[in-house]
Amino acid sequence: MKQKMIAALVLSAACTSAAFAAPRGDEPIQPLAAPEVKSPLLVELGKKLFFDPRLSRSGAISCNFCHNLSMGGSDNLKTSIGHNWQQGPINSPTVLNSSLAIAQFWDGRAADLKAQAGGPIANPIEMASSHDVAVGVLRSIPGYVAEFKKVYGSEGIDIERITGAIAAFEETLVTPDSRFDRWLKGDDKALNAREQAGYVLFRDSGCVACHNGPAAGGTSFQKMGLVEPYVTANPATGRAGVTGDDTDRFNFKVPTLRNVELTYPYFHDGEAATLEQAVTIMGRLQLGRNFTEKETADIVAFLKTLTGKQPVFELPHLPPSVNGTPKPQPFSKQ
Amino acid sequence: MKQKMIAALVLSAACTSAAFAAPRGDEPIQPLAAPEVKSPLLVELGKKLFFDPRLSRSGAISCNFCHNLSMGGSDNLKTSIGHNWQQGPINSPTVLNSSLAIAQFWDGRAADLKAQAGGPIANPIEMASSHDVAVGVLRSIPGYVAEFKKVYGSEGIDIERITGAIAAFEETLVTPDSRFDRWLKGDDKALNAREQAGYVLFRDSGCVACHNGPAAGGTSFQKMGLVEPYVTANPATGRAGVTGDDTDRFNFKVPTLRNVELTYPYFHDGEAATLEQAVTIMGRLQLGRNFTEKETADIVAFLKTLTGKQPVFELPHLPPSVNGTPKPQPFSKQ
Repeated sequence: MKQKMIAALVLSAACTSAAFAAPRGDEPIQPLAAPEVKSPLLVELGKKLFFDPRLSRSGAISCNFCHNLSMGGSDNLKTSIGHNWQQGPINSPTVLNSSLAIAQFWDGRAADLKAQAGGPIANPIEMASSHDVAVGVLRSIPGYVAEFKKVYGSEGIDIERITGAIAAFEETLVTPDSRFDRWLKGDDKALNAREQAGYVLFRDSGCVACHNGPAAGGTSFQKMGLVEPYVTANPATGRAGVTGDDTDRFNFKVPTLRNVELTYPYFHDGEAATLEQAVTIMGRLQLGRNFTEKETADIVAFLKTLTGKQPVFELPHLPPSVNGTPKPQPFSKQ
Repeated sequence: MKQKMIAALVLSAACTSAAFAAPRGDEPIQPLAAPEVKSPLLVELGKKLFFDPRLSRSGAISCNFCHNLSMGGSDNLKTSIGHNWQQGPINSPTVLNSSLAIAQFWDGRAADLKAQAGGPIANPIEMASSHDVAVGVLRSIPGYVAEFKKVYGSEGIDIERITGAIAAFEETLVTPDSRFDRWLKGDDKALNAREQAGYVLFRDSGCVACHNGPAAGGTSFQKMGLVEPYVTANPATGRAGVTGDDTDRFNFKVPTLRNVELTYPYFHDGEAATLEQAVTIMGRLQLGRNFTEKETADIVAFLKTLTGKQPVFELPHLPPSVNGTPKPQPFSKQ
């Protein structure tokens, strides 16, 4: 009873302080909610698979190789390194908060994380395995056989179960509690004056037309180079490759700006090395606006407040292969 | 007082049960002691560096790429994949319990873990960077600058401090509490009859002449192919490359057998895919003995009891690069 009274007093004091004003409910970007873990066992299995390089032909490339959870869920390269050191065609998007996107891949060719997860495994310039081989590898490993059974309630490993578990893990990779989120929730002191000015400029210049929602992006496909064409040597055509409609040419999924301080370099071709470059180019090409150096610096200061709490978990230990497990083929010719 | 009495009673009961008989003090393999962490901050820094691919030229290869702590501290490949998918010359030894070895690398060319850690960073077929470049990268990253200062008590990042931190982390990668250790400590039920028979055969056949000490190996250099020559296409000459003495030809550091179930494939060339093959070949080449199938199976059963408690820690989050950080060069020509 006494504890309740003290709690009520503390709460009351907090609510009247400047640091806990009313939440800002009418902003185009909303706070990220902490992920809800529906099935911890499924997530745990998915985590193992996410870190398991045996899903690749070489035995060396795991999901985490390009979506490194030590580095903002990205590889911080312009384009990724795939099997046999092949150069990937496009910048690896962060896996963080990817569950909030309308679709997966830059061109949205996968409807959801489960559909996405099967792609790189079988892509000859990424993990370069096949679904059959990957399933065969996991089926040979007693530790996985037991864990899939425990998680799914029946015997069996197939690509549906594999990608379902990976997607369940990825759904937990949400990064709440950034300074910007605390500010959105009413903590005025969470952002300094420059950061607040940067946000107001970001919002009122129209950046939020595309970078909106809890992920500050990921809610729509938009043309890269709306006002002025984007010049790049990268051959990716974006949405047109999926729809076959030439008017979709250079339409890409708007990337999330959450944790953007960690997910350099920027754009689908990775050609913007810094946030300053990215902001300058976006302002000119998408909004027809030449941000001054100070304006750019303000927006960049705001963008850095979008770095949230990174997923915290123990590095998984993978069940070992056994004598019958198909061998990795790092150096054999295709 | 009452609690103390209960504790004493429980302890007394435990000590008289069969499961807690006297420790086996006169065996050639001794239990692994849990690692003592002298400087948690130094270890934490070393963990970050161990997982940081920016120590490589490509920005993609970390220490953990070849010494994967999800997979027994090894990459489970015959020989490793290095920069530009170059094929390594030798099997990556596990980093687990490596602090217990008399020297590092198969040929012992590094005196200790600190000396070892600088090798792969600058090796053109491994991480393919240089100490200067790696130091420059870390010096450009404010998060590292602050952490090195906090850990070492003064400003400054150099290769000595980098490798010192990595070595401090690696020293914690000890795997105590295997079933064999529990048996050594007096728990008779920790091994079944076959595993005990396998150990007795392993010991009394002479395997322990080389595989002894707490790490069941790592205490000496020995000739691979003592009784009968080892035939391999692998050009590694072992200790002779370090000493220049031709009598050291094919002398390699005896690998630890701790966690050997996880560190397949075996031998310096990775050509033994299974424990059965490794035991059969070792018996013939080193001891002049043809183990029967049952004997081999018994020894393998024993070897699998050497899997200890794997290091448990949270995946580190790396401090981000900034605009001035030298860029990774994954695809540029040397």
